[in-house]
Amino acid sequence: MPVDLRFFRAKETFTVEQLAKLTGATCTGDTDRLISGIAAADQARSGDVCFFEGKTSALATMDLQAGACFVTADVAEALPDRTSGLIVEQPRLAHVMAANAMFDLRDWTDEGEPASVHPTAKIAPGAYIGAGAAIGERAVIGPNSVIGPGVQIGADTSIGANASIRCALIGNHVNILSGARIGESGFGVTSSPEGAVDVPQWGRVIIQDHVMIGGNTCIDRGAFTDTIVGERSKIDNLVQIGHNVVIGRNVLMASFTGISGSSTVGDGVLMGGRVGIADHLEIGEGAVLTADAGVMTNVPAGETWGGRPAKNFRQFLREVAWLQRQVKRGKKPSK
Amino acid sequence: MPVDLRFFRAKETFTVEQLAKLTGATCTGDTDRLISGIAAADQARSGDVCFFEGKTSALATMDLQAGACFVTADVAEALPDRTSGLIVEQPRLAHVMAANAMFDLRDWTDEGEPASVHPTAKIAPGAYIGAGAAIGERAVIGPNSVIGPGVQIGADTSIGANASIRCALIGNHVNILSGARIGESGFGVTSSPEGAVDVPQWGRVIIQDHVMIGGNTCIDRGAFTDTIVGERSKIDNLVQIGHNVVIGRNVLMASFTGISGSSTVGDGVLMGGRVGIADHLEIGEGAVLTADAGVMTNVPAGETWGGRPAKNFRQFLREVAWLQRQVKRGKKPSK
Amino acid sequence: MPVDLRFFRAKETFTVEQLAKLTGATCTGDTDRLISGIAAADQARSGDVCFFEGKTSALATMDLQAGACFVTADVAEALPDRTSGLIVEQPRLAHVMAANAMFDLRDWTDEGEPASVHPTAKIAPGAYIGAGAAIGERAVIGPNSVIGPGVQIGADTSIGANASIRCALIGNHVNILSGARIGESGFGVTSSPEGAVDVPQWGRVIIQDHVMIGGNTCIDRGAFTDTIVGERSKIDNLVQIGHNVVIGRNVLMASFTGISGSSTVGDGVLMGGRVGIADHLEIGEGAVLTADAGVMTNVPAGETWGGRPAKNFRQFLREVAWLQRQVKRGKKPSK
Repeated sequence: MPVDLRFFRAKETFTVEQLAKLTGATCTGDTDRLISGIAAADQARSGDVCFFEGKTSALATMDLQAGACFVTADVAEALPDRTSGLIVEQPRLAHVMAANAMFDLRDWTDEGEPASVHPTAKIAPGAYIGAGAAIGERAVIGPNSVIGPGVQIGADTSIGANASIRCALIGNHVNILSGARIGESGFGVTSSPEGAVDVPQWGRVIIQDHVMIGGNTCIDRGAFTDTIVGERSKIDNLVQIGHNVVIGRNVLMASFTGISGSSTVGDGVLMGGRVGIADHLEIGEGAVLTADAGVMTNVPAGETWGGRPAKNFRQFLREVAWLQRQVKRGKKPSK
Repeated sequence: MPVDLRFFRAKETFTVEQLAKLTGATCTGDTDRLISGIAAADQARSGDVCFFEGKTSALATMDLQAGACFVTADVAEALPDRTSGLIVEQPRLAHVMAANAMFDLRDWTDEGEPASVHPTAKIAPGAYIGAGAAIGERAVIGPNSVIGPGVQIGADTSIGANASIRCALIGNHVNILSGARIGESGFGVTSSPEGAVDVPQWGRVIIQDHVMIGGNTCIDRGAFTDTIVGERSKIDNLVQIGHNVVIGRNVLMASFTGISGSSTVGDGVLMGGRVGIADHLEIGEGAVLTADAGVMTNVPAGETWGGRPAKNFRQFLREVAWLQRQVKRGKKPSK
Repeated sequence: MPVDLRFFRAKETFTVEQLAKLTGATCTGDTDRLISGIAAADQARSGDVCFFEGKTSALATMDLQAGACFVTADVAEALPDRTSGLIVEQPRLAHVMAANAMFDLRDWTDEGEPASVHPTAKIAPGAYIGAGAAIGERAVIGPNSVIGPGVQIGADTSIGANASIRCALIGNHVNILSGARIGESGFGVTSSPEGAVDVPQWGRVIIQDHVMIGGNTCIDRGAFTDTIVGERSKIDNLVQIGHNVVIGRNVLMASFTGISGSSTVGDGVLMGGRVGIADHLEIGEGAVLTADAGVMTNVPAGETWGGRPAKNFRQFLREVAWLQRQVKRGKKPSK
């Protein structure tokens, strides 16, 4: 998925050789190839540069399509012929350097085409609408809310007060309550010789129709792809949704629930309050996660899980009851 | 409790027959009765329409006073004579449809009587004060905060920056820190043939004198009644208080605490960080809930509870210690 | 550490005798001594008044340097000669009364020297910059953000939309995302005859260079000293950092993590989501706290801890596995 130029600004195009110079890499293969895009390894195309950190075997089986790839020397031989190699010690860090040279996040106040606001939309006093944004029919933007450049807001959608939205496409009949933060940078960090370094996030947020998003809830934009909330899903206050998360339709999420990066949630999943889901997991359709569930593995469709770490809810309840009985039996705990 | 017209707008009054037509219901009893209000079943009066989902026996023992009630066909016979029946398959959904036809939440920027701001109050630049709001003596509204239409702010009360308040009555000497969200919609969802549907929330928030509310904390307005925070209660940052919650006096709540809908908290209750309380529970006066307590049942007055699910704190500590001892005893866990 | 007059206003200076009169205390020692400052007992100097609640033996071994100290009658004899005694029943409450008479938090909109904004800085529409604030080279303040009086923002630092910052010194190359709340009052409460009373907070927040702070995260100012976030530490969305917390360099903190007052976190500590740390603890350099860890004791450097209450992560995992095995073994739980 190419970087969306409504939200980011393309600064420069590089040859593989120039990227090598920029990042201190040694290059292999076609060093004159023009690179104009950035992407994750599994999505990169011939004009993109990606990075790979892992084992030779994983790289070899990957069907990499990228035009160039930052890799460590030990795995470079596994790159396919179509991919120029950029050999460095810290591929992820080098990719960050390249990406920062190629693209910029548009500032909230970047100049550009004027915003397009439908005559029937209501923009409250103090609301800020960025360049190139589009506000649909009968949409309402509350006082002091901030809509970033290029953001699309659908018809009959309502944004509360003091909310902010950037790098996002918002559907119709969506209700976003006050103080929600949509499209902020996901939490990406890598190490460098100087210490921790932010990994910029080049993706977007997609909110489908009839979604509700509670007060002060945060939905981060994707790293390279999109964070998606499916139709009619309802999200309570103070929820955190990480980058690249994909949430299905009719999902309910109560307060303080947090979903870590790149996890997917099937249609109709129900979550009680304070559910936590680790990264890169799949929650099957119709699953129920009870309040406080701390999910560390995939959850099969239709199952009810609870506890920390989460497991089948009945097993969890049995464990709770059994432990209580053991300790109550003799008033003195056994030695 | 009638819908407060300072915060909501009455659109139309209906006969029972008209409500039936609007929602696809079959009506019984007096079909010409005028319905001008909405309420929960236990609070509805003769001019109100409510809904009931449950068993015949529960309905029969309920002393229902409503003028009309959405019910399923199987329990309709248990309605008292004074209550017209509106027979539908999904009573709650039909009630949402009726309520949406009868009332609207006032927009942040709805026109009306000018706000009344005491000459000694300080309204910072960028603050928005809605129509009909009242700001008391020496009150301070911080920069870019938003006060909704009809909101009352007492004397010597201070609102930080970027906070928003709607559908709320705020007492004297209250301190609301930056980014707090008071009076947003509670989390109410019901199902429909199209999928999940928001249940609009018609109640208010009442904040009594000398209350402190931390940064980015959310206190939702009630569904039909009020969410109440009692005198001198002190609430930390990033706390969530659901609809219809009633909190007593001198209650302390640390960060990340969440109280689910319709629970009540007695005077002087102390909560450590990240306490969770399920819905419709009662926490007795003077109880102590230790950090991370996940409360799933009522807590008696004066007791100290902890753990997830929460129990008597000593029992919880004994279980923690006993389990640790079992596993440490033999380095190999028993099979 | 003296109260920083960029953020607070000195109202009046008192003799010990006047403080006694103000608070209903009985004074001992030099009652004419001028008191112009407030501080915690371990940091107070000869011009400061502090308070002490505890045992005689603790006071006697404290090397108190304060000019005056609120104490209860039973421990007053342990005050050194250089410290005037202010004998009251509730020393902390009396100290609050004295502090409130001596200092005020500056309002967001307090008048004063005009802010100093570097010509290369970008201040977005709707942003509010308080008196005496300084905005560095190439810094960006997003739309509708609020910078309090006296706040210093370093070069190349970016503040998102709808964020607020007060009582804080922010370094260079810092990235603060939308809706973050920096420098709000810490959660301090004491009891009084009327009920719970807010303890005002007189410290600051220091954010060092290259720090990242996520959306809607809250970092409270210190009680008397500073809350500090060290260089290159990266903080996710919806995190809570309490007063006086000191965080080292290159610390990573995921969403919903909360650190209670006065705890310190060493360099390079990693925290998964929803980690909780109780107050006054030390987390050693390089420690890893896994998601959901509830830390109730100090954590040695380099160790990995998890669970609630947190312990060595392997022990935690063994306990989880052992308990599950016990309950699964016989399908009927043992009686």
